[in-house]
Amino acid sequence: MARVVVDVMLKPEILDPQGQAVANALPRLGVVDVASVRIGKRIEIEFEGAADLERAREIADKLLANPVIEDFTMRIEERPEVEEQ
Amino acid sequence: MARVVVDVMLKPEILDPQGQAVANALPRLGVVDVASVRIGKRIEIEFEGAADLERAREIADKLLANPVIEDFTMRIEERPEVEEQ
Repeated sequence: MARVVVDVMLKPEILDPQGQAVANALPRLGVVDVASVRIGKRIEIEFEGAADLERAREIADKLLANPVIEDFTMRIEERPEVEEQ
Repeated sequence: MARVVVDVMLKPEILDPQGQAVANALPRLGVVDVASVRIGKRIEIEFEGAADLERAREIADKLLANPVIEDFTMRIEERPEVEEQ
């Protein structure tokens, strides 16, 4: 089993109201040193055999990202990852 | 400016119908070697000064993740990252 992680984020020029809503809530938590919050998607694709980045790129391109408004990055993830919580 | 990335994923025991829908669509693309697809959130928090992981953890805990059904991981991201597309 091998995992490819695809991160899909709105292009920088596209407004992100969801992230803006989180950013607007921060002063209530006493956080004043955050310049921006952007919220996107993280997709974990588990391959049965070896990780196939070309395959993953095709999946991301056709099913996961909207190229008009989103960019994506991909990487093979080595496990285990350190869990923060 | 420093960036903290928070990845929020459903706990492994929680069903992910959105990821399942993508997995179910893969055979139509000719992809048959994917065992599972899980879809979560990636949040980029830009700090005005140094990245503050403790602050980011508080933000994630209170605003970004639902601890009943989600786990999150955090890391400071060094830039620039290689853009895949």
